[in-house]
Amino acid sequence: MIIVMKPGAARADIERVVERVHKAGLQTHLSAGEDRTVIGVIGHNPYSVKDAFTHDASVADVIRITKPYKLSGREFRPRDTIVELPFGIRIGGGGVAVMAGPCSVENEAMLIETANAVRDAGGHILRGGAFKPRTSPYAFQGLGRAGLAHLARAREVTGLPVITEVMTPSEVECVSDAADVVQIGARNMQNFDLLREVGRQPKPVMLKRGLSSTIEEWLLSAEYILAQGNYNVLLCERGIRTFDTATRNTLDIAAVPLLRELTHLPIVVDPSHATGKWSLVAATARAAVAAGADAVMVEVHPRPDEALSDGPQSLTPANFAALVPQLAAVAEAVGRRLLPPVAAPATATAS
Amino acid sequence: MIIVMKPGAARADIERVVERVHKAGLQTHLSAGEDRTVIGVIGHNPYSVKDAFTHDASVADVIRITKPYKLSGREFRPRDTIVELPFGIRIGGGGVAVMAGPCSVENEAMLIETANAVRDAGGHILRGGAFKPRTSPYAFQGLGRAGLAHLARAREVTGLPVITEVMTPSEVECVSDAADVVQIGARNMQNFDLLREVGRQPKPVMLKRGLSSTIEEWLLSAEYILAQGNYNVLLCERGIRTFDTATRNTLDIAAVPLLRELTHLPIVVDPSHATGKWSLVAATARAAVAAGADAVMVEVHPRPDEALSDGPQSLTPANFAALVPQLAAVAEAVGRRLLPPVAAPATATAS
Amino acid sequence: MIIVMKPGAARADIERVVERVHKAGLQTHLSAGEDRTVIGVIGHNPYSVKDAFTHDASVADVIRITKPYKLSGREFRPRDTIVELPFGIRIGGGGVAVMAGPCSVENEAMLIETANAVRDAGGHILRGGAFKPRTSPYAFQGLGRAGLAHLARAREVTGLPVITEVMTPSEVECVSDAADVVQIGARNMQNFDLLREVGRQPKPVMLKRGLSSTIEEWLLSAEYILAQGNYNVLLCERGIRTFDTATRNTLDIAAVPLLRELTHLPIVVDPSHATGKWSLVAATARAAVAAGADAVMVEVHPRPDEALSDGPQSLTPANFAALVPQLAAVAEAVGRRLLPPVAAPATATAS
Amino acid sequence: MIIVMKPGAARADIERVVERVHKAGLQTHLSAGEDRTVIGVIGHNPYSVKDAFTHDASVADVIRITKPYKLSGREFRPRDTIVELPFGIRIGGGGVAVMAGPCSVENEAMLIETANAVRDAGGHILRGGAFKPRTSPYAFQGLGRAGLAHLARAREVTGLPVITEVMTPSEVECVSDAADVVQIGARNMQNFDLLREVGRQPKPVMLKRGLSSTIEEWLLSAEYILAQGNYNVLLCERGIRTFDTATRNTLDIAAVPLLRELTHLPIVVDPSHATGKWSLVAATARAAVAAGADAVMVEVHPRPDEALSDGPQSLTPANFAALVPQLAAVAEAVGRRLLPPVAAPATATAS
Repeated sequence: MIIVMKPGAARADIERVVERVHKAGLQTHLSAGEDRTVIGVIGHNPYSVKDAFTHDASVADVIRITKPYKLSGREFRPRDTIVELPFGIRIGGGGVAVMAGPCSVENEAMLIETANAVRDAGGHILRGGAFKPRTSPYAFQGLGRAGLAHLARAREVTGLPVITEVMTPSEVECVSDAADVVQIGARNMQNFDLLREVGRQPKPVMLKRGLSSTIEEWLLSAEYILAQGNYNVLLCERGIRTFDTATRNTLDIAAVPLLRELTHLPIVVDPSHATGKWSLVAATARAAVAAGADAVMVEVHPRPDEALSDGPQSLTPANFAALVPQLAAVAEAVGRRLLPPVAAPATATAS
Repeated sequence: MIIVMKPGAARADIERVVERVHKAGLQTHLSAGEDRTVIGVIGHNPYSVKDAFTHDASVADVIRITKPYKLSGREFRPRDTIVELPFGIRIGGGGVAVMAGPCSVENEAMLIETANAVRDAGGHILRGGAFKPRTSPYAFQGLGRAGLAHLARAREVTGLPVITEVMTPSEVECVSDAADVVQIGARNMQNFDLLREVGRQPKPVMLKRGLSSTIEEWLLSAEYILAQGNYNVLLCERGIRTFDTATRNTLDIAAVPLLRELTHLPIVVDPSHATGKWSLVAATARAAVAAGADAVMVEVHPRPDEALSDGPQSLTPANFAALVPQLAAVAEAVGRRLLPPVAAPATATAS
Repeated sequence: MIIVMKPGAARADIERVVERVHKAGLQTHLSAGEDRTVIGVIGHNPYSVKDAFTHDASVADVIRITKPYKLSGREFRPRDTIVELPFGIRIGGGGVAVMAGPCSVENEAMLIETANAVRDAGGHILRGGAFKPRTSPYAFQGLGRAGLAHLARAREVTGLPVITEVMTPSEVECVSDAADVVQIGARNMQNFDLLREVGRQPKPVMLKRGLSSTIEEWLLSAEYILAQGNYNVLLCERGIRTFDTATRNTLDIAAVPLLRELTHLPIVVDPSHATGKWSLVAATARAAVAAGADAVMVEVHPRPDEALSDGPQSLTPANFAALVPQLAAVAEAVGRRLLPPVAAPATATAS
Repeated sequence: MIIVMKPGAARADIERVVERVHKAGLQTHLSAGEDRTVIGVIGHNPYSVKDAFTHDASVADVIRITKPYKLSGREFRPRDTIVELPFGIRIGGGGVAVMAGPCSVENEAMLIETANAVRDAGGHILRGGAFKPRTSPYAFQGLGRAGLAHLARAREVTGLPVITEVMTPSEVECVSDAADVVQIGARNMQNFDLLREVGRQPKPVMLKRGLSSTIEEWLLSAEYILAQGNYNVLLCERGIRTFDTATRNTLDIAAVPLLRELTHLPIVVDPSHATGKWSLVAATARAAVAAGADAVMVEVHPRPDEALSDGPQSLTPANFAALVPQLAAVAEAVGRRLLPPVAAPATATAS
């Protein structure tokens, strides 16, 4: 950490600052420049005095020079994390996975219809929301535990692992029982009690980026989960909020290679929420794979115009079936490979 | 709701759209313009078909024309809500209240020292966080229930009602027992399970605006609380996230008069979190009162350089004591009046 | 255009509004809903009365339903524009072009060294700034007209057409003489006098998106150029400003497919300015091609650590040579093809 | 400037960096921390090597520690600048001035009608645009030189100094001749050729903040003007672009006290453009004065519903007359005072 004194700070001012740092058990290193002195702070936790000088009129600035996340950062853990799911699916490490399914679980029949279409087209993981965070209290709020049961049935019938969202700590246990991947939605990225709770359960967690979260805040939220002992965390870029309302959000595509530098965790991109418009999903999904994403997640609904949520951004099964080979082609163009298709379970032949 | 057809949409396209609307039990009203037709949708809940045409290539746009919040909106409830607190304090209806105190409750002694300073300077409500949402898992996380006990003691000693934050549904009951106003922080503005829970407890709720929430999303979050039967909701503008990092957040001062038009709920401004810098707090607090806020909330700490959180934005008791008469002067300049000082309780004379 | 009356607007209010519309030579179409009336405005230019009701207390909202750009919009001109450059280079229509070169022209030798490297690696168009918009008056401001002469020489030696920026109307003529494509930088996207001036000269124009410009504002700025008779306009997405400072700007990748829907003009992406960090350029350039861009523009400098501007985001010639085949592979994966390499001119064999 | 090495940088890496710095004529100061070394760079212009290490894999970061603006910064020029206008009007130094008038000059009669109303209500400076930057080429573009003549006439008749915008370098001379203050609009804040040109003419300049400009970029744009010798620069905050579209822009009220700390230049606030809605102008104008602005600028139009531009944000003369005493009261509440009213010229009694 660096403390920058104002030009013209007196010797006594500098000594006062140095003394305060020493009092906290830290060491200092002075450097006198042309018109100002900077004080390096050295020791185990220099940030314990980071805010100690904001009321000191002789201090111009205090500058942090190390990253505040340790477990999720690549600096101290250089090798890529690979998240292993049932049915031999691995996220990270070079393959590209496709997650797909409806925004909300609406009933068992539509879920299984969609899941079969996803698997037949080459998708690897079934998504579907049982607990739904909705901006308006008057909107469809999801089926809750009944939705989890439908997901379990669709998993059994189709052989696809499932990912579904948890919204509150008291439901972590039941979601964790039903899901292969537990999702934390964008609105809950800084719901710290919830992060701690999913850090204590055994299933992998997909952490969506908050609507207006910096990369650093996102990695610190991952850190909450890792610090509880759960290292199987996927990071999902799903668009950020900007001044531009032509799309629902703005897909921060550069976050993909940037995260690759900063963290060892696998990276997922959700072009459906990022764009909010189904006609833009294919192009941005291809872009995500070209940029190096380990997985993409897209919304698919058999009849988007009747969907209870997010119809405007849902692909039809036919659109989705057209997209998968495009993603495979782009993956190969960048030296990667789509994961192999999931086999239908023996007992599901009649479905 | 208005459905805008593309230029050149055929008669059959229009008929298909109209039929779909009628199927949902709604009526239509056609209007043929120079180069396109628009279809008005009339009926009880036109939004049930809002997303039904996003995959229809002949439809250009679907436009909403009513506001989605009912209980919090002024359209259907024109009179200002006034929130009554103990000790005769009323927020809304023309007076201006001042909430002040430390970011975090650190221990009983510092809390009572601060609370006395707040009351003596003319503050009306004591703030202090027991449960603290922190970006990093390595930062001080608050004292939890012990902090609530300190707040109860400070309330008793100083005669100030207290406001404190709740972060998760399982702690709503204990926070509600201890607090006069329950605060929902910015990061939890769309934690819908938590909103429902505070909607079911009896104390007033202060709902902070999310970091990047639109005014409409904010009022819809308030709607979650009101829909549970709790109508005592305060809205607190605390700065939004923008490209500008010169201040911690950007105080959206125009939100004050805009909310006044849109809602009957009282409006609070928090210049400490909005600016993140103590030297900017006084000017922006004065601006808030000039713009018509019903209350301001500022952070005060006896020794900001030793604060466990938010020291950089905390006023000293001396700064705060200088600010209160400024707020009183501005309030009078705009035809309002600071609430009268709170009397020290008889038993607290020794404090 | 639609005028939405407030709930409870009286018959006289509605009549007053209708009369005002008729006075402007427009027709109206009333539609009475459950709790409010909406008035459709029909005629040649309904926007002439768009702002006429903002002080009318009985009007809730006025909603536009057509797009304000005509010449640049796809609605009235469905076929893709193809911009033809010298040496047989065509932008738009299915091929993918690569523009590359230094941020600034620093001297003739470095420019020709870079240009040769660009051509030899498979780049098609040489970029280089002679007039440089710099945030600080103390930064290198470009070589001006001398830089244009260096560009002319590099063009002759390498056989690459050149693109360079113009900053002010009085320099349009000299830039137009020297350049094959005249660039309008992001900061000048709404410099309307400059837009009109480049609309009157014969060379194609590449219009960069402003730092915080909406898609609609961008297309309206293109409209300024087209309205002067110059239809050869390229739109260049170069990152927008958001709260996120981890990258220099945020590359709005979804703008590529969105523009494809809205306009017939060719689309260029500049990943160098969008990210500001050379190590992120390759991944985002690949993403741009995967999303359907007609061209990418990247900064290349032989010795980025000595560059007078934008060194941090410049590729070395070796980085660039590694990127081109990646772009070719992604282009083929999405059914397109990189333009063929440019042949060295006969007279340049000694270079 | 500080160069931060990566953890584990080898001795040879550090020596290479140090050598590169010395080669540029600068000195270094090493400080070895727990897990990384930081290198202080000392000398006249350390920023000459700021970008020299972005391709060096052993360097983590390069951190600037001084402000890049000198002439506009308070560090080297602590005393407030006061801008003197004709008729004894001074901006800065404790008084509060009010600028008002129509968005565009539409014709002489309406301008004089408005100007008289402005003066009679207590306004000090007449605003009015002759050259108008408009997003659409199809919108009213201003009267140009004829508008300047109307302004000159209004100035003569009412005794108010005038402020008007210049859009392009070739028109600086004629605008400078007609205006008492030359305005640079938000879209031209980084039109550097124009900034240099107004820096060379004698009239004070009001520099509006760009739509998405940081405070630092704004002060660097002011620096372009000051560097040409014109020190009479006013900074006008007029709202920034954020995700929030409930108001036209977001008024950054905290910029007022922040600028007061950073610069000696006078500060103006334009609540009309900041909010875009006339009903929000009075509250935000009061807030601006409460926050310490040296002047406010508001749009006034005798018949806003017939205005050729910005009618929605224009006050009527009656609204404006009601606002001025409110601003006077707030100014006094914060220890300042509205400038005295401007006397009508002797020859204008008949107006």
